[in-house]
Amino acid sequence: MAGGGNELKLLGMWASPFALRAKLALSFKGLSYDYVEEDFENKSELLLSSNPVHKKVPVLIHNRKPICESLVIVQYIDEVFPDAGVTLLPADPHDRAVARFWAAYMDEKLFGAWIQLFRGKTEEEKAEGVKQTFAVVEKLEGALSECSKGKPFFGGDTVGYVDVVLGSFLAWVHAIEEVFDLKQFDAAKTPLLAAWMERFDELDAAKEVMPNIGRLVELEKMRQAQAVAAAAIVTATAEAN
Amino acid sequence: MAGGGNELKLLGMWASPFALRAKLALSFKGLSYDYVEEDFENKSELLLSSNPVHKKVPVLIHNRKPICESLVIVQYIDEVFPDAGVTLLPADPHDRAVARFWAAYMDEKLFGAWIQLFRGKTEEEKAEGVKQTFAVVEKLEGALSECSKGKPFFGGDTVGYVDVVLGSFLAWVHAIEEVFDLKQFDAAKTPLLAAWMERFDELDAAKEVMPNIGRLVELEKMRQAQAVAAAAIVTATAEAN
Repeated sequence: MAGGGNELKLLGMWASPFALRAKLALSFKGLSYDYVEEDFENKSELLLSSNPVHKKVPVLIHNRKPICESLVIVQYIDEVFPDAGVTLLPADPHDRAVARFWAAYMDEKLFGAWIQLFRGKTEEEKAEGVKQTFAVVEKLEGALSECSKGKPFFGGDTVGYVDVVLGSFLAWVHAIEEVFDLKQFDAAKTPLLAAWMERFDELDAAKEVMPNIGRLVELEKMRQAQAVAAAAIVTATAEAN
Repeated sequence: MAGGGNELKLLGMWASPFALRAKLALSFKGLSYDYVEEDFENKSELLLSSNPVHKKVPVLIHNRKPICESLVIVQYIDEVFPDAGVTLLPADPHDRAVARFWAAYMDEKLFGAWIQLFRGKTEEEKAEGVKQTFAVVEKLEGALSECSKGKPFFGGDTVGYVDVVLGSFLAWVHAIEEVFDLKQFDAAKTPLLAAWMERFDELDAAKEVMPNIGRLVELEKMRQAQAVAAAAIVTATAEAN
């Protein structure tokens, strides 16, 4: 599109919570875009040239200029399209700082705990991942209370930045429940988060872009089986030596 | 200060690059503030109550409201005091996204490589830290070229967000050079970065808040000696068993 149009292209991968984050922001804004599904085993030239530093999805390409890193993309979308759909970042600078704080916390701590849960080499390491996950979720109950000020979403009456950030993890929250029999947002322990999750899951703009949970479950079960097989090979090799 | 004044208090620790980041932002903005030096071994009640999640410096307290996490603090200062001193975040949304991208990269990759260099348990691990550090610095040369567009600073004609972020690491760049005999920003390999460092070091607003390099060198030498002593105890204990 020539001359100041808004040509949007998103490079993503269906199972990536970080790519989902960009999709959610675009969906809540009601923006249309071209979507390119990337293959992790065979990344496109466009991905490699658009994100030469990390070579990772998501990348948003706006009028041929790439924007990388999911949190950066969400803020960019909100800043460039302030009048489209909902406003994601709070108007008040202190509220905005609180939202950025919790977004960073979720990426570092919730995702960090999951990595331990998913990829722990021993049962002890995995158990530590579960423990960390619940410690993080407890903090998130407080985050929701702080950000929402009693309203339905982190963003208040409508979804905002933190809803997009945590919402992008929800498909995996559901998949983890099935794969590991682990209910993270439990109404008995974190009633605010559990109710928030139900509300978020019911949003049409979220439903439109959420991946199929069954496919995520299958993907993770396959990865777990591969990890077990790889460990068995290591053990067999060690015994043979 | 009652009724809408600007009471600013910073909780920091003299050797912390992240606390220095907040000091640099305040200094470039020409804002005055109360400074509270925290003791890592005995954190103040104010720190624990202001940052209950991470319990870490820096915390900026503005009119009694705490703001945590250094990148969040710098953006907050720029948003609340847009007319003070220099403007840190670029005006153009794409330039802003690029600045946020590189800020996140520096925190994750440069600091990550340093941790390996500082705390590697073996000579191999430390050598890997050195290798990673130089790989990151090479990328930073490109970052400076991308952000500055040929001007003296990442922010252009004046310092901006990325200058503050990388500038906060400069005291440790100098200390690392002394402790590990490692010249990171070498004019022969990364001429743009080396020239940028000289320019940054000469800024009065930076000089005012930079810690004493000699003290950082002493601190790190002490830590290295403690690590060697701790490793010797582990070895001796293992041999005794």
